[in-house]
Amino acid sequence: MSSVVNQAWLRALPSKVPAGLANPMEMAAFELKSALPDFPVELHEAPALGDGFSLQKAADGTWTLTGGQTGLLYGAWQLILSRLAGDPLPETLSSSPRYALRMINCWDNPDGSVERGYSGRSLFFRNNRLSPDPDRMRELGRLLASVGLNVLCINNVNVHFPGQLLLEDMLPDLAALADLFRPFGVRLMVSIDFSQPMRHGIPTADPLDPAVGAWWRETARRVYAAIPDLAGFLVKADSEGRPGPFTYGRNHAEGANMLAEAVAPFGGVIVWRCFVYNCRQDWRDTSTDRPMAAWQHYAPLDGQFADNVILQVKHGPFDFQVREPLSPLLLGLKKTPMAMELQLAQEYTGHQIDVYTMLPMWQELFEELPEENIMSIAAVSNLGDDANYTGHPLAAVNLFGFGLLAWNPGMNPEAAVRRWSRLTWGFAPAQEDALTRALLSSRRTYEKYTAPLGIGWMITPHEHYGPNPSGYEYDLWGTYHKADRDAVGIDRTGKGTGYLLQYPEELQRKYGDPAACPDLYLLFYHRLPYSFRMRDGRTLIQRIYDDHFEGLEETKALAATLSALPFPEPDRTVIDERMKKQLCNAREWCDIINTFFHRLSGIPDAQGRTIYP
Amino acid sequence: MSSVVNQAWLRALPSKVPAGLANPMEMAAFELKSALPDFPVELHEAPALGDGFSLQKAADGTWTLTGGQTGLLYGAWQLILSRLAGDPLPETLSSSPRYALRMINCWDNPDGSVERGYSGRSLFFRNNRLSPDPDRMRELGRLLASVGLNVLCINNVNVHFPGQLLLEDMLPDLAALADLFRPFGVRLMVSIDFSQPMRHGIPTADPLDPAVGAWWRETARRVYAAIPDLAGFLVKADSEGRPGPFTYGRNHAEGANMLAEAVAPFGGVIVWRCFVYNCRQDWRDTSTDRPMAAWQHYAPLDGQFADNVILQVKHGPFDFQVREPLSPLLLGLKKTPMAMELQLAQEYTGHQIDVYTMLPMWQELFEELPEENIMSIAAVSNLGDDANYTGHPLAAVNLFGFGLLAWNPGMNPEAAVRRWSRLTWGFAPAQEDALTRALLSSRRTYEKYTAPLGIGWMITPHEHYGPNPSGYEYDLWGTYHKADRDAVGIDRTGKGTGYLLQYPEELQRKYGDPAACPDLYLLFYHRLPYSFRMRDGRTLIQRIYDDHFEGLEETKALAATLSALPFPEPDRTVIDERMKKQLCNAREWCDIINTFFHRLSGIPDAQGRTIYP
Repeated sequence: MSSVVNQAWLRALPSKVPAGLANPMEMAAFELKSALPDFPVELHEAPALGDGFSLQKAADGTWTLTGGQTGLLYGAWQLILSRLAGDPLPETLSSSPRYALRMINCWDNPDGSVERGYSGRSLFFRNNRLSPDPDRMRELGRLLASVGLNVLCINNVNVHFPGQLLLEDMLPDLAALADLFRPFGVRLMVSIDFSQPMRHGIPTADPLDPAVGAWWRETARRVYAAIPDLAGFLVKADSEGRPGPFTYGRNHAEGANMLAEAVAPFGGVIVWRCFVYNCRQDWRDTSTDRPMAAWQHYAPLDGQFADNVILQVKHGPFDFQVREPLSPLLLGLKKTPMAMELQLAQEYTGHQIDVYTMLPMWQELFEELPEENIMSIAAVSNLGDDANYTGHPLAAVNLFGFGLLAWNPGMNPEAAVRRWSRLTWGFAPAQEDALTRALLSSRRTYEKYTAPLGIGWMITPHEHYGPNPSGYEYDLWGTYHKADRDAVGIDRTGKGTGYLLQYPEELQRKYGDPAACPDLYLLFYHRLPYSFRMRDGRTLIQRIYDDHFEGLEETKALAATLSALPFPEPDRTVIDERMKKQLCNAREWCDIINTFFHRLSGIPDAQGRTIYP
Repeated sequence: MSSVVNQAWLRALPSKVPAGLANPMEMAAFELKSALPDFPVELHEAPALGDGFSLQKAADGTWTLTGGQTGLLYGAWQLILSRLAGDPLPETLSSSPRYALRMINCWDNPDGSVERGYSGRSLFFRNNRLSPDPDRMRELGRLLASVGLNVLCINNVNVHFPGQLLLEDMLPDLAALADLFRPFGVRLMVSIDFSQPMRHGIPTADPLDPAVGAWWRETARRVYAAIPDLAGFLVKADSEGRPGPFTYGRNHAEGANMLAEAVAPFGGVIVWRCFVYNCRQDWRDTSTDRPMAAWQHYAPLDGQFADNVILQVKHGPFDFQVREPLSPLLLGLKKTPMAMELQLAQEYTGHQIDVYTMLPMWQELFEELPEENIMSIAAVSNLGDDANYTGHPLAAVNLFGFGLLAWNPGMNPEAAVRRWSRLTWGFAPAQEDALTRALLSSRRTYEKYTAPLGIGWMITPHEHYGPNPSGYEYDLWGTYHKADRDAVGIDRTGKGTGYLLQYPEELQRKYGDPAACPDLYLLFYHRLPYSFRMRDGRTLIQRIYDDHFEGLEETKALAATLSALPFPEPDRTVIDERMKKQLCNAREWCDIINTFFHRLSGIPDAQGRTIYP
């Protein structure tokens, strides 16, 4: 592991980061000197700027970079990446991040496995111990710093034993890891087990029990003594079997505030995930509609959370499907700090086998989400100990792009993808264009060959790769399409489950009428007959067939594009192997979804293409 | 594990089997003296009788039991079980088993897990070692002997490392185990890895390569030196990823005969499983019909196998579904010794959670299978290290009944179940009647609430418990129903895949016409519209609904029956817990299958019962 050859988009850098740099300013100076030895720049620390920086060119051609400790580091990277990419520098540039906490959530388990990980094993854990490779940690710190990411939660939100020991026996190792990341401006965060006091003779984890609060306060004191800049704790409570306040008849404000009180003296935050729903639903129960759950749980608590609690809300109301509307919580909570949670790990989006560039999707989210509705942003990690960090070399664009998004949600996806491509591959302009176009369209391609028009969940249960159109249909997870011989989908308007009523009126109008609802959300919001006439004149069933055949054709075109590009080894081999699998996957999806709907509807393809019996 | 309290149907016996009995005749004498101390019987060995025995009452009221070594033991058990059950003894009785090898195939892995095991861990293996409890082995030997079973294959047919070591490092332990079972008339058998020579520097497992044959001959010599009465080797070749002759362009006669030559000098046999099919089928491929595979592979080889090869054929052409026709191989091979393979492990039939008594099903098989078509019989084990051996106390009836069937396939299922019930529980007559009826009808009940009318496979993939009507529909296993809005099933007649043509003409006539085909096989052989009119006037879809509602109601009645019976603890608790799960399972199956077909057909239940949308 020590001799890693691939530094993702920083592979062109001339040298590794040495040990012993004390802080982000020293790091900034080192990186500038190493990457741009002849570039005339001076650093000036201005603590009040924090993560922000400004860059100015003097009349004599020299530059001044001014910023807080971390701002200097981010400014240095802005300079370095621009120069490496060959982009012109403006004479003056000021920048500061839109969001204070730009977080990566790793779902790494102490045994070294990674939940929903598709890039090898954990970078941090092995054999139930924290045993990272320091060289590799510095590489990772550099990658994160280069795109402005500043919080790293290293352990799975599903905290199973011995994950709790991060706050106990493993605390010295955690502190050592924090020391490694500190010069990169990266602070650690820890996922905790809400019932952890019960490991210590306390008979309850009731957040209102004085002994419980006292235990957490003492624990926070001990943890912050070891890691004074720990960002805080990340909590998955009362979700998918995790312990939480509900056990004791308490609500989530009571649970979160108790923890918030413990970390407040040290400047810590509690990031409290809102992924709470009934995961033991009876499929016969049509009165429960899973996407409604988060709003039902949290909207009544708006204003009741302590100042240092951040509610972390998945971008959509389900769970990282390729197409979901924005979570109504992100629009509706007015008095509670929120973070939006994205997922770089391609759990439902191709397992880092299929090419799937997320930046266009994120951009769509911000078309409806006012930037100021959230104060932080998080993404589930796609990192692992593969030499290229992300399993598929092209999946690194999502980590890169997430950094840029977290800094500035108004960033231009095309420019970001192009910059990543140029830094990583240094292709000729026509090749760079081809790759950029291919990546930008890859999400729509994947969407076309998988579950149609926002319906989601037609994926192989548990594994979450490949099609199984009814795999979740009679299961406990609340994810049903109820396709029958006449129609498909759930009516989520006011006439149906009422989910749509959780939105502001403007969005209710946008999505509520099937004749006006954007096509790609049609089957999320509406139950429609196969003969439903789309705005473009096609029937719903024909649109489904067309999308799937197009998705397969586009995948073939994508394969041809990638095949013609001069990727170096070992990327060439990895990309070719995975593309072969993606082609199989796209064909399976296309044929199975078409057959599934053809068996139900009995309606042939208007263009006479092959739909298997 | 040493202090096991439950001896299945022999729990009434006054004493354990001591160590040190030298042979089956000594065992017979011990068992008679221990169980029937006052019964006047003398033993006379007549080696020519082998497993057979005769029992005669003299004028003075004393009895003489004459038989071969093992015949004496089986005769002793015949006496003991009759007396314990209170059945009258005829004045004279001669009996010998229909089949020479009455085999239990355990699918136990060296790590102690049991493939498709629902009764705890392995009785033989732990931590990759053979480490059985001798007391428990003697209990098991006694149970097997008491119903005439005489061959025990202890390891999984899927031989993964270190399973091969049974013939290598573990051979002394295997020999010690054989010593333990020998006084019970039980001989061991071993599942082997066809590629095992390659572990020893031989670059191939080609059966025609002289080095391969030589390795197996030397191995057989070594193994038989340690275990002179080893029954032989059991082989799963070229099936579901196992190695075999196909790799080398050889056929299965060439593969089996090479092994047969190695064990022939020692009187050993090669039991060669015929479970060979394409397990990587493309669901789009309608030219391949999995049930046809065994015939296609083996019919052309009839007459080419060595005399000491036994082809072991699963009873049906698929894989132990609740309803399958008899395998055509069992009717068609004329010049090859065969064994029929049954499965006591309830893989697809309720995991030893649902009550499922197999004896009526076996009886149906012999209605079409002439006894003499096979020369041996095998069953996949339902044994594990649970105190009651079979997980569910009522599942022991299948092990008991299999012994009786292997001795005499003309046995009466009702009498067998009643005897088992009386030996195990000793209930009052009305209770015994109720239990016997409940067990005898349990298979039809399970059949009613699961996949309808012989179609099979609507079960949760891999796990094989609970419904998933399309779980295998687009998978690689060749198990499709192709249900659409109009019809369901595969046409396997001469007009369809042609599977039916593998049968004798009489059976082709019996099953070929949907108007005449027995209802319960209708969807195995035919593709039919939901409106198809059954002989009783109901439509196909109505029959499906009716069966499922009936299956659920019958399960409720079964629960009431069992609840009213005076089972002792711990059986009471286990039976109640499992019945609760069976009720959930039956309800899930009933509702999901009905909903599945209702969504497709759009046809309501004629009786207006609830079918969920």
